[in-house]
Amino acid sequence: MAGNFRYQQLAQQLQHLLTAGYWQAGERLPSIRALCQQYQSSLATVQHALHQLEAQGLLEARARSGYYVRSPQVAMVTASALPELGRPAPVTVPELFFDIMNRSAAFDIQPQGPVVKLPHLTLLHRLLSRTLREQGTRYALHYDEPLGLTALREQLALHYRQCGLRLDNNELCVTAGCQHALFLALQAVCRPGDIVAVEHPAFYGVLQLLQQLQLQVLEIPTDHDGMDITALQHALASWPIKACVVTPAYATPTGACMVETRQQQLLVLASVYDFAIIEDDIYGDLGFYQRPAPLKSLDTEQRVILCSSFSKSLSRDLRIGWIAAGRWQQQVARLKLVSQLAGSQSVQQALALFLAQGHYKRHLQHYRIQLQHQRDQVLQALQRYWPEANYTIPQGGLALWLVLPETVNCTAAYSQCLQQGIVLTPGALFSSSGQFQHCLRLSFANPMLGNRLAALQTLAQLFSAKSA
Amino acid sequence: MAGNFRYQQLAQQLQHLLTAGYWQAGERLPSIRALCQQYQSSLATVQHALHQLEAQGLLEARARSGYYVRSPQVAMVTASALPELGRPAPVTVPELFFDIMNRSAAFDIQPQGPVVKLPHLTLLHRLLSRTLREQGTRYALHYDEPLGLTALREQLALHYRQCGLRLDNNELCVTAGCQHALFLALQAVCRPGDIVAVEHPAFYGVLQLLQQLQLQVLEIPTDHDGMDITALQHALASWPIKACVVTPAYATPTGACMVETRQQQLLVLASVYDFAIIEDDIYGDLGFYQRPAPLKSLDTEQRVILCSSFSKSLSRDLRIGWIAAGRWQQQVARLKLVSQLAGSQSVQQALALFLAQGHYKRHLQHYRIQLQHQRDQVLQALQRYWPEANYTIPQGGLALWLVLPETVNCTAAYSQCLQQGIVLTPGALFSSSGQFQHCLRLSFANPMLGNRLAALQTLAQLFSAKSA
Repeated sequence: MAGNFRYQQLAQQLQHLLTAGYWQAGERLPSIRALCQQYQSSLATVQHALHQLEAQGLLEARARSGYYVRSPQVAMVTASALPELGRPAPVTVPELFFDIMNRSAAFDIQPQGPVVKLPHLTLLHRLLSRTLREQGTRYALHYDEPLGLTALREQLALHYRQCGLRLDNNELCVTAGCQHALFLALQAVCRPGDIVAVEHPAFYGVLQLLQQLQLQVLEIPTDHDGMDITALQHALASWPIKACVVTPAYATPTGACMVETRQQQLLVLASVYDFAIIEDDIYGDLGFYQRPAPLKSLDTEQRVILCSSFSKSLSRDLRIGWIAAGRWQQQVARLKLVSQLAGSQSVQQALALFLAQGHYKRHLQHYRIQLQHQRDQVLQALQRYWPEANYTIPQGGLALWLVLPETVNCTAAYSQCLQQGIVLTPGALFSSSGQFQHCLRLSFANPMLGNRLAALQTLAQLFSAKSA
Repeated sequence: MAGNFRYQQLAQQLQHLLTAGYWQAGERLPSIRALCQQYQSSLATVQHALHQLEAQGLLEARARSGYYVRSPQVAMVTASALPELGRPAPVTVPELFFDIMNRSAAFDIQPQGPVVKLPHLTLLHRLLSRTLREQGTRYALHYDEPLGLTALREQLALHYRQCGLRLDNNELCVTAGCQHALFLALQAVCRPGDIVAVEHPAFYGVLQLLQQLQLQVLEIPTDHDGMDITALQHALASWPIKACVVTPAYATPTGACMVETRQQQLLVLASVYDFAIIEDDIYGDLGFYQRPAPLKSLDTEQRVILCSSFSKSLSRDLRIGWIAAGRWQQQVARLKLVSQLAGSQSVQQALALFLAQGHYKRHLQHYRIQLQHQRDQVLQALQRYWPEANYTIPQGGLALWLVLPETVNCTAAYSQCLQQGIVLTPGALFSSSGQFQHCLRLSFANPMLGNRLAALQTLAQLFSAKSA
């Protein structure tokens, strides 16, 4: 846990006090001002340290009141949920997944509640309409460059430079979304039968890709600091792992972030055991307090394949993502060309303008606050209606992870909930080995109000009855 | 040749009689009605059996007259006239291809000349702008259904019904273009190492796909009536062909259309030898005098996978295509979901409105006349500046095929032309076996005026000098 930064050292000091019982569960911590004085630290350092302890589940922030010590019951959740390391195995995605997709549920509990306002989207759509008017006929008759529109790649490179990652625009290739980028990455790196290490729990989209590409999966335990590197190292000693897929920033479903020490260790292992790291950075722009530098910024061997898109940060309707594939860039670009031919030039052009005019940055400033507010709505609802539930408290992204008593089976409850008009995202979707049956992913992409709040109440009652 | 189906048994019985000399060469077979009675078989069974024997080269169908026994000499002539059939082989796409794509040349001779007016595109863009204003936020937060927007699939199904093909909207899956559809089709049907038969010359996009998916190619000679079915049958007798890719309507590069007898024969062979037919219908809507019914309209066994898009008929910027994969529909839908996740709902919605309001039909009426006019401009330019050239005269589509003296090497001339600002589409791109070096594809997607006309003159002078 210790690190080079002052805030990391402070977080460790406070953690010692917390685990030693210096402060009791439910007790309010000294004010930030008092902590600054006591530890001779700046406001930013103290805030940063407190955020980290909050992310670890040790503290709880309450609006206009301060930080409170969480009960150990809550903090223990992630650690005790760590499964044993299995053998590589083919992947089978449950049929349930296709049922959810057919309901356009976007893996959120339904009903969806009131429509969210996204004012910057109106601006983007105006830019798109203008581009269509001005360039439409020209774009209609020609395909774009194989890597995608240069203007957009330049803006993406600039955006990443501001996040601590230096990229040339030719190191980027525009795709039809992050899932498409992950698909290209796995196709470029692996052959059928190869073994791929993934986080456990993992993003279901990656598990499906492994199934479709006939790859074998090895699930590596993951906690709130990211993938367990020791477990990965054990696996590497036993199996010829070809690629490792990680989401270092606000991973779905838990919202975990990989700490920098683990990122460094992962890169060392990749070099020693010669495998590719596929980095899913789709939630990177959605950090409430910071924009973590991508793992790729530490990559000196062109081993990290960065995948991302605008689907979570801006709109799922754009179908624009990107990939920076390092040493696999040429294969990826060719595979994209062959499997897809081209992307929409007008959408790329509108996005390039949107970024160049600073709208994306302004949008993120607003959207992060909105998402944090929506996360807090979910936390409040859980405290009120579902007090016995354990859950993660993400500092960014779009979802948190609910861990129910082991007697509960969320997959089995799926149909029952459906009859009441509620679509669940059962935890089993995030594992290929049938685990996490007692877990649920809860999204805060939409406000927890109205029908959605009522649905959450219904769920709480239903599952509390089941576990009783 | 014998099989489980009644028609296969009947075909074998008739084959025995033919080879035993029961009917003489040139003799007319009993009428279909008589054969039905004699063999206690249904009309469909007898027709199916006769088609099979025709495909084998044993019978010849004469319009409004019946089936005649082919003389062995005739059969031999056809056989000896067969260009030599190669062995299945892995595909290597020339580097040249990537150079052309990097120039956004859309495989047309450059420079591009004046911009074409596409008035209906303005209408489509207005519908899209309206959809973005009205639905933007809703679409931003949710992905579409795995098969694509129902409203668009319904309109596509209706469009095909008017072209003679009955499809339910659930038999269609929206893709990111025709190339994406072809990719999904080949992924669903084939495994690495499998053999795929293609037209010769073939669409380069298919050759690239075969390379990328590590499939083996078998090039089947093709003339102005489509793929040579006798040659295909010879190949089938020697190799386990898994799929056959054809463009029955206005194939690129030659503009050839497959005649219906060959279509019937191809379907019989697919049934007998159990392979998939992948139909590229992207130029189907661009017939100057008619809209040929897709090959899939004759398919009674769900063996034909129809692939198409709006890229050639409406705009390359939309990135909307579709696939009707018959018995492989579920695999294709899942593969699309996993490799792509979703499509743009606003673009699909705008297209659904565009079709529903009759704009697409009106656009095609104008566009076909415009394309025919542009084809005639090319023909006139060729007659005037390049009188010694041989070329095809397509009745639809976007391109014609120029066949120069065999001493000419268009691939070698590529760099020289580039220095004069002219981008060629050398014939070698349309073969995986290094053939067609003396051929060129000429597009009539743009008017042959101004700079483009001057470029054609330059080419004519250059190549006439080379062949002299």
